[in-house]
Amino acid sequence: MAERFEIVEKALLHMLEEKKYATLRDILATMNPSDVAGVFSNLEEKQIPLMFRLLPKEQAAETFVEMEPDAQELLIRGFSDNELKEVLDELYVDDAADIVEEMPANVVKRILKAADPEMRKSINQILRYPDYSAGSIMTTEYVSLRPNMTVEEAILRIRRQGVDKETIYTCYVTGKDRKLIGLVTVKDLLLAEDDETKIEDIMLTNVISVTTQDDQEEVARMFGKYNFLALPVVDKENRMVGIVTFDDAMDVIEDETTEDMEIMAAMTPSEKSYLKSTPFDLFKHRIPWLMLLMVSATFTGMIITSFESALSLLPVLTAFIPMLMDTGGNCGSQSSVTVIRSLSLNELKFNDVFRVMWKEVRTAVLCGITLAVLCFVKILLVDRLLMGNTSINLMVNGVVCLTLAVTVVIAKFVGCSLPLLAKKLGFDPAVMASPFITTIVDALSLLVYFSFAKTLLGI
Amino acid sequence: MAERFEIVEKALLHMLEEKKYATLRDILATMNPSDVAGVFSNLEEKQIPLMFRLLPKEQAAETFVEMEPDAQELLIRGFSDNELKEVLDELYVDDAADIVEEMPANVVKRILKAADPEMRKSINQILRYPDYSAGSIMTTEYVSLRPNMTVEEAILRIRRQGVDKETIYTCYVTGKDRKLIGLVTVKDLLLAEDDETKIEDIMLTNVISVTTQDDQEEVARMFGKYNFLALPVVDKENRMVGIVTFDDAMDVIEDETTEDMEIMAAMTPSEKSYLKSTPFDLFKHRIPWLMLLMVSATFTGMIITSFESALSLLPVLTAFIPMLMDTGGNCGSQSSVTVIRSLSLNELKFNDVFRVMWKEVRTAVLCGITLAVLCFVKILLVDRLLMGNTSINLMVNGVVCLTLAVTVVIAKFVGCSLPLLAKKLGFDPAVMASPFITTIVDALSLLVYFSFAKTLLGI
Repeated sequence: MAERFEIVEKALLHMLEEKKYATLRDILATMNPSDVAGVFSNLEEKQIPLMFRLLPKEQAAETFVEMEPDAQELLIRGFSDNELKEVLDELYVDDAADIVEEMPANVVKRILKAADPEMRKSINQILRYPDYSAGSIMTTEYVSLRPNMTVEEAILRIRRQGVDKETIYTCYVTGKDRKLIGLVTVKDLLLAEDDETKIEDIMLTNVISVTTQDDQEEVARMFGKYNFLALPVVDKENRMVGIVTFDDAMDVIEDETTEDMEIMAAMTPSEKSYLKSTPFDLFKHRIPWLMLLMVSATFTGMIITSFESALSLLPVLTAFIPMLMDTGGNCGSQSSVTVIRSLSLNELKFNDVFRVMWKEVRTAVLCGITLAVLCFVKILLVDRLLMGNTSINLMVNGVVCLTLAVTVVIAKFVGCSLPLLAKKLGFDPAVMASPFITTIVDALSLLVYFSFAKTLLGI
Repeated sequence: MAERFEIVEKALLHMLEEKKYATLRDILATMNPSDVAGVFSNLEEKQIPLMFRLLPKEQAAETFVEMEPDAQELLIRGFSDNELKEVLDELYVDDAADIVEEMPANVVKRILKAADPEMRKSINQILRYPDYSAGSIMTTEYVSLRPNMTVEEAILRIRRQGVDKETIYTCYVTGKDRKLIGLVTVKDLLLAEDDETKIEDIMLTNVISVTTQDDQEEVARMFGKYNFLALPVVDKENRMVGIVTFDDAMDVIEDETTEDMEIMAAMTPSEKSYLKSTPFDLFKHRIPWLMLLMVSATFTGMIITSFESALSLLPVLTAFIPMLMDTGGNCGSQSSVTVIRSLSLNELKFNDVFRVMWKEVRTAVLCGITLAVLCFVKILLVDRLLMGNTSINLMVNGVVCLTLAVTVVIAKFVGCSLPLLAKKLGFDPAVMASPFITTIVDALSLLVYFSFAKTLLGI
């Protein structure tokens, strides 16, 4: 599929260079706006306005929404006031607000000047809500109905107003003071047996709604749970202020997942796509955690230094340090990632903390014993017999495997409890993923290792 | 929000115990089926059929779909033939197929016997498609229109057939032999100016479709890109066979993301939710990679052993091993996670491999220099001056920091190229995440460390 599309893209670029504008226009007109936007992302700066003017009006606006912010800015700067107005008139309010958020101040001023008064008001309203809130991703363009309308009147209203609404398929019934009192779907309206039926008789009254201040990720997850096309957004007095649609929810989930993964791999989240990021962008997002984790490894260094004399008595102990640290890190990250993901899918709550710990400890004992036995056999066969390392006697082997088993249990315990603790304290649990856990588990496993060595080997 | 829901849940369980069935029924009837299913997951086995029989018919079926497989199986085994038929009649075909897939053979036989012949045929058709294909997640219930119908006829057809269709909002226009030739949305139909307009005059003809064999994840990602409510599924001859709806796409994306995260944390993916998994389930999914990675750490052990004499000459070198290994691991996992995520969002292709490598190498040089300088200063101030460790002279410090810089570059290079290579070879790039990269980078960084130590310190 992706390959097929690359061929089309190459053909289009070729036509643009050959100035075959008529053919180019005909082909572009048949393409989906998202795909057209994809073509734009491969154009040189000066080609962008040229190709954009080949698009039919409505498709131009839809393509514009899907384009990268830098291409959007370039186009806006090149637009005449009239062209800008034409594009803006075709946009939905939430898309316009998204674009405004990405633009520098002087471009924003031009956009707000060109927008019609009602859109300007709505954009300003959406921009006032906190980032990552339901209010900031909603649109104010929805179909509202009155409870005493008939089905026929409702359909008539949809036909009159629908063209400017982001979705017409779910309509919201509002009472006095715009209070949300119910919803009807177009399916309900079309399947109603009698055109004279009142809306209040067929509407669903137990409407699930969110408030403007709710977190966008929680709102987005509700779409996955309930399979809604749209969710109504209300203020504290249950007055209808907008709707969030499923496509925005999908974007939020994608962004939040990427953010989670970035944080879990010790990066500060970035909004730029990878190929658009410069090495310096990547550097800025990666270096803070690397520095912090590097400096905190001072502790592991100190632990090793304080056991330097023991290690010089029995140097073979050093050889097992990487294996113990890595296995501990892997065990910890298995538990932390599992818990972090369950938390973000709302499958786990902080109250489950003891259930989780108990489950993890039992799993850890199973893993610990299995790994210790395997390790014992491996050291005996490979390190002792095959490689003939005579300094590894049964006691040394025992210390290594015992440490391994204890490390696994500690790692899984730390790995499952820190994300839950972070959640409880209001931090992002994703911070408590592999790199962070690894640093803690490293120090703990070394402490265990050297105490066992001292006690059991008497060094 | 979650807290509010827990209170309702507790109240419902209380009513069930107190046998206040009438009140319970009234409250359940107002709840969303997903939430009702949530209540069921907290019931004891013998309470499940009791509470299920309190639900109104349609809600019962919708709740049934959202329940966990073990509760579904329990209910089916308890149903009379009539009850089973009633639930099945209310199900959409794709949901019925999902349930059939989870049930043991004798339950499947009962379901297929109770289903009406058309549903049985459709279920069998869906089950024949490979797992994880578009065919396996589609439904065969969609509205199809003819090109020569008028808008009025089309609306009439939707009103007649719509009640049994999973979505009525996107209708597919098929020609001879069920070939897909276009689509119209209900919005187009309602907003059409003239009821006598022919469908072929308003339909969109460049329909984006998928084939039954396409990978479900790729299909699901198309929803995010194009904001579709549904995607048509066609066979090799472009004959319409079904549709995938956005809610199934959202489920697929959620499952695939969880799977990616599990694989990235060195676990084999599990379909059970965390709280439903026994410790032994968790053990089975976690132990294979732990064993593999532990055994492969033999190499790092061998490297250390072969430099044992050098280490005993200058034991302080040992103290920096964890810091070097962890920083290398963190750098590698930053790069690999970024690349893996971009690959799964289709932002990267294998062809970008050289662009990616070049970007990562430049980022790595920036990170490497910064970390090396910071490390030099830290060792000088903390380890040398503050802790008075006199065995760390400037040369030793230099060797550590030089190794650090080189390790960072190697780690980022390995981290970005292995996932791309895996993709090219047809493996899941997620396998090439932190644990795997860490094991490789550990060995490489130790080799670099000891070579520098030998050459520069002459030990």
